[in-house]
Amino acid sequence: MKNEANHTAILLIHCPDEKGLVAAVTDFLHKNNGNIISLDQHVDQAEQRFFMRVEWELEGFAIPEGKIDDYFGTLIGRKYRMEWQLHFSGYRPRMAIFVSRMSHCLYDILQRCMSAEWKVEIPVIISNHDNLRDIAGRFGIPFEVIPISPANKAEQERRQIELLHSLNVDFIVLARYMQVLSDDFVAAFPNRIINIHHSFLPAFKGARPYHSAFNRGVKVIGATSHYVTADLDEGPIIEQDVRRISHKDSVQDLIRIGKDLEKVVLARAIWLEIQHKILPYKNKAIVFD
Amino acid sequence: MKNEANHTAILLIHCPDEKGLVAAVTDFLHKNNGNIISLDQHVDQAEQRFFMRVEWELEGFAIPEGKIDDYFGTLIGRKYRMEWQLHFSGYRPRMAIFVSRMSHCLYDILQRCMSAEWKVEIPVIISNHDNLRDIAGRFGIPFEVIPISPANKAEQERRQIELLHSLNVDFIVLARYMQVLSDDFVAAFPNRIINIHHSFLPAFKGARPYHSAFNRGVKVIGATSHYVTADLDEGPIIEQDVRRISHKDSVQDLIRIGKDLEKVVLARAIWLEIQHKILPYKNKAIVFD
Amino acid sequence: MKNEANHTAILLIHCPDEKGLVAAVTDFLHKNNGNIISLDQHVDQAEQRFFMRVEWELEGFAIPEGKIDDYFGTLIGRKYRMEWQLHFSGYRPRMAIFVSRMSHCLYDILQRCMSAEWKVEIPVIISNHDNLRDIAGRFGIPFEVIPISPANKAEQERRQIELLHSLNVDFIVLARYMQVLSDDFVAAFPNRIINIHHSFLPAFKGARPYHSAFNRGVKVIGATSHYVTADLDEGPIIEQDVRRISHKDSVQDLIRIGKDLEKVVLARAIWLEIQHKILPYKNKAIVFD
Amino acid sequence: MKNEANHTAILLIHCPDEKGLVAAVTDFLHKNNGNIISLDQHVDQAEQRFFMRVEWELEGFAIPEGKIDDYFGTLIGRKYRMEWQLHFSGYRPRMAIFVSRMSHCLYDILQRCMSAEWKVEIPVIISNHDNLRDIAGRFGIPFEVIPISPANKAEQERRQIELLHSLNVDFIVLARYMQVLSDDFVAAFPNRIINIHHSFLPAFKGARPYHSAFNRGVKVIGATSHYVTADLDEGPIIEQDVRRISHKDSVQDLIRIGKDLEKVVLARAIWLEIQHKILPYKNKAIVFD
Repeated sequence: MKNEANHTAILLIHCPDEKGLVAAVTDFLHKNNGNIISLDQHVDQAEQRFFMRVEWELEGFAIPEGKIDDYFGTLIGRKYRMEWQLHFSGYRPRMAIFVSRMSHCLYDILQRCMSAEWKVEIPVIISNHDNLRDIAGRFGIPFEVIPISPANKAEQERRQIELLHSLNVDFIVLARYMQVLSDDFVAAFPNRIINIHHSFLPAFKGARPYHSAFNRGVKVIGATSHYVTADLDEGPIIEQDVRRISHKDSVQDLIRIGKDLEKVVLARAIWLEIQHKILPYKNKAIVFD
Repeated sequence: MKNEANHTAILLIHCPDEKGLVAAVTDFLHKNNGNIISLDQHVDQAEQRFFMRVEWELEGFAIPEGKIDDYFGTLIGRKYRMEWQLHFSGYRPRMAIFVSRMSHCLYDILQRCMSAEWKVEIPVIISNHDNLRDIAGRFGIPFEVIPISPANKAEQERRQIELLHSLNVDFIVLARYMQVLSDDFVAAFPNRIINIHHSFLPAFKGARPYHSAFNRGVKVIGATSHYVTADLDEGPIIEQDVRRISHKDSVQDLIRIGKDLEKVVLARAIWLEIQHKILPYKNKAIVFD
Repeated sequence: MKNEANHTAILLIHCPDEKGLVAAVTDFLHKNNGNIISLDQHVDQAEQRFFMRVEWELEGFAIPEGKIDDYFGTLIGRKYRMEWQLHFSGYRPRMAIFVSRMSHCLYDILQRCMSAEWKVEIPVIISNHDNLRDIAGRFGIPFEVIPISPANKAEQERRQIELLHSLNVDFIVLARYMQVLSDDFVAAFPNRIINIHHSFLPAFKGARPYHSAFNRGVKVIGATSHYVTADLDEGPIIEQDVRRISHKDSVQDLIRIGKDLEKVVLARAIWLEIQHKILPYKNKAIVFD
Repeated sequence: MKNEANHTAILLIHCPDEKGLVAAVTDFLHKNNGNIISLDQHVDQAEQRFFMRVEWELEGFAIPEGKIDDYFGTLIGRKYRMEWQLHFSGYRPRMAIFVSRMSHCLYDILQRCMSAEWKVEIPVIISNHDNLRDIAGRFGIPFEVIPISPANKAEQERRQIELLHSLNVDFIVLARYMQVLSDDFVAAFPNRIINIHHSFLPAFKGARPYHSAFNRGVKVIGATSHYVTADLDEGPIIEQDVRRISHKDSVQDLIRIGKDLEKVVLARAIWLEIQHKILPYKNKAIVFD
C-alpha cells in the first residue's frame, strides 16, 4: 500500500440540524490552527438534517493526525450527535473492480490509474468470466475469475467477500458487472459499492435498457452511477448524464453511444468517491462538487 | 385565415419498404420540373417500413398545386401502398392552445407568433380556468373557459371538439393543460395533439413528476414533448431535453428550472410540427430535423 | 416600492485570504443567535483571496436589521479588510431593462415577473426604438424611448443615467440592447449591468456572431451573460450555455435557435443576481449556485 | 490487411447544384437493382453546391464492385461535374495515430479497436517521444519515435510521410500530438488528418487553451475535432462538445475534465470518418449523421 505524505484532512459529517454547527466545526479547526481549504454544507429541510464537508491543511495543525478523530469526537462530534468520516489526502483508497465481458469501462479506469489522474490502488479485478484476463495482465493487476450460477451464488459471494476483506478493499466498482448482488453481499459493503447503470434512472431499470429505450422511441439516452443497495437500481444516485439520439440510431448504435456515457459517468462517480465528496443519506447522495 | 403565396410543397410519406422508392418519388418530381430543396428518408428495419420527407419549389413545377395530390396518388402513392400528406409552405397552420393556470408556455408561444418566428394562426385558447384570460386579451386571441369536472367531462369535451372543428383547427397544443383527455377526444385528433410532460419520459409518468424526481434524488431533470394517445404519457416522443440539478435544489427549484425546459422543448416540437418534419408511426415519431 | 417582510439576510464577502475567516463570520452569527440556511465559500489560490456567501434567518437574530451592517463592519469586516454587501430577502430589487427591436428576451423577463417567479420591480424599460412600446404598455410598465446617434450619444446617456438614478435602479439588464455603452455609462453602474451576448464568449465577440458562427462551420452555438465593463464583451461571465447545430442550419436557423439560448441564459443570470449569488472580482464572477 | 466481405457501397458526392441530381443518382442505383439503405443530401445555398451520401446493398447489384466507379463516372459523375468517393463497407481503413506524451486518447482509441467497436487497422503509432511505447507494445502495434526539433523538422516530416505512404495509410489521427505540422506535410494528406483541439474553437486557438479558459473565467469548456489545414486550428470542424465548469475548478481540474471531452469528441470524429459520413468542402464539414 503506497501512501504519500498527508497534506490535508477531510471531514464528512451529518447530524440533526441545529444552530451553530458550522461555527462549532470551524471554531474547532481555527483554534487548532487549521487552514480551511474548502467548506461545503447543506441542510435537508425535509429531513432536518445537516451535511458538511470540510478540508483543511495538516501543516501546522495542532492535533496530530492519529488523534484528530478522537479529539473531534470528544469535543464536537458526540455533542451534536454527528456521524462523521475522517480522511487524509495522502491515503490511496483501495478499489476492487468487478467486470463481466465488456472492456470499455475497465480500460477507461485503468488508463486513469496508470496516468496518475487518480491516486488509487487496485488490489484485484474480479470477474465471472475469463475473457478480460489479458487486460488485467497487461496492467499487472491480479485477476480472479469467480463464476456465478444460481446454484453456487451464495458460496461464491462468500469467497468474494473474504477476498475483498483480506485485501482491505475500501470500495468496489461494478464496471458493467452483469450480476445482481445478493442482499448479504450488499450488506457487507454498505454505500461502498458503486454501479454504472446504462439508462437515466429511474427510467429503464433492470435488464436491457437500451432495447427498452429503442422500443420507447426516446430522444435522449443516459447513464447513471449510484451506490448499490438491496433494492435493484434504487440506490443513491451519484451522477447522471445523457446524450441525444434520433430515429436513425439502431439498438446497436444506442449500445455504442451509451458506452461513452457509461465510462464517463462511472469515472466521474469514482473521482467524487476518491475525493470524499459524496455523502449518501437514506436513498439520496449529497455530492459536494 | 391569412395565407401567403406558396413557395414550396412538402410530401410526408410512409409505406412498406421496397427497392426504388426514392427513385420513384424523385423521378416524379424531376420529370415535372420540380427542384428539390431537401430530402430525408429513413427505413425502419424492424418494421420493414419506409419513411420520407421531400420539399421542392413550386415555381416552374409542371403540375398545378390543386392537382398534385391527385397526380401523386395516381402515379406513385397507390402503386406503392403509400400513406402521404401534402403540405404547402404558404399555408398558416391553425393551432389551438389548451392551458390551465400556468402562463410560462403560453407567453412563450404567443411571443413567437407575435414576432413572426412562427407562421401560425391561433383561432382560440381554451382553458378550464379563467385566470389566463387577460393574457389572451392582451394578444387579441379568443379565450374560452370550459371548466371540466368528473360529472361534466364528456359533455364539455364534446363542446371543445365542436368548437375546434368549427374553427378548422389543424392541431392542438396542450401548454401545461392539467386535464387528462378522454379516449374519445384523443380519437377525434389522432396524432394532432402535442403535449408537454414535465419529466424525461418514461421516467416519472403521471402527476407531480418534479416531486417524484426530488424524492428519487436524480441529478438531471427533463421535459418531453409527445403526441397524445389513449395511453397516458405513452404517445410518440417528438423532443426531449434535460438540465442538471443538485442536492441543493428544492422541489420549488425543480419546478422553476423545469419551466424553462418545458417551454423550450414544447416550442421545438411545435416548430417541427409546423415545418411538417414529424412522421408519427405506431408509438414512435420520425423527426426529420 | 413593494417590499415584503424580511425573512433572511445575506452577506456577500471578499477579502485577503487568511486563517479563521469562516470561523469568525459563523461565530458572529451564532453568538447573535442566527440560524445559517446556506453557506458557500471559495478561495482563489492565485489571487490569495477569500469569497463567501452566507444566508441566515432574521427571526430571533439578536441584532436589529438596521444595525447589522454597522455591527458586522465594526466587529468583523474591517478587522479582516473585507468588502461586503448586505442584502435582505424581503427587498425587491429594482431592475431597469434596455431593449432595441427584438422582443424575445423582454417577453421572457416580463412573464417571469408577472407570474411571480421573480420578485423584482421594473420601474422602466428604455429603448432606442419605439417598436416594443406596446409590449411595455400591455404590462403597465413605463417605456422611455431615448434614441442614440453618434452625435447625441453622450447627452442621451446622461439622460439615461439621470433617469435610472431618479428611479433608484439597482441594476440594469441589456435584453438585446444593440448599442455599445460608453465607458462613462459603465462607470456609473460598476458590475451592475448584465448583458446577454449571442455567442459562447470569447468566441465571436462583437457584431453578428451568428453570421460568424455560420461562416466558421461550428457544430455548437452558445450564449453568454456577463457584467458589462469598459472592455467590450470582456466582462465577468455569469452564465453560458450552448446548443448543437448542423450543416443544415442556415444563419436564420442559428438566429432562431440562438434566441432560446439567449433568453434562458439571460434569465439564469438575472435569477442569480436577484438571489445575490454572484460575486464579481476583477474579470471573473464567482457564482455560488 | 484484413478485409471482410463487402455488404454495402457508399458514394460521397458533391457538385454544382442543379435540378434532378437525386433522381439521377437514385435512378442509376435502382435500374441496376441497388437497394438503398440510407440517403442524405444537402444543398449549400450560398455556394450553390449539392452534397450527397448514399449507401446501398451490393447483394444483387448489377454492376460488379470493381466497375462501379467507372460506370458511375461515365453515366452520372462527369455529366454533372461531380467529385465523388466510392467506399465499401468491407474495407478496413488504415489509420495512423500520432501521439506525444498523454495517453488518454490513445488508450481510448485502442480499446475501441480491440473490442471491435471500430473496424480499422492501425499500422503504426508515431510519436516525438518514447514514453507511450509500452502501451503500443501491450497492444502489439508498431511504435515509431520520430523526434522533432526546429532543426530537423523538415527532414523528420519527410520520414513520416514516407513511412505513412509505405504503410498505405488512409488517414491520420493526431491524438494530442503536440507538434504543429508543416504546410508540406498537410498538403500530403489533404482532409485526411483529424486533430483534437482542447477548446471549443474558434475560442482559445493555439497553445494552452485550458489556461486561457481559466483566465477568462468561462463557465463551459469544450473540445473540437477538425481536419487539419495549413491554417492552424482553422480546418473544417467535424465535432464539438462542451462541459460546464465553475469557479471552483482549477486549471488542473479543467485539464482533467477536458480529457474526457477530448477523447469522446475525437472518437466521434473518427467514427464518422470510418463510416464515410463526412464531406469536407472549403472550410466546413458536412456531417451526415
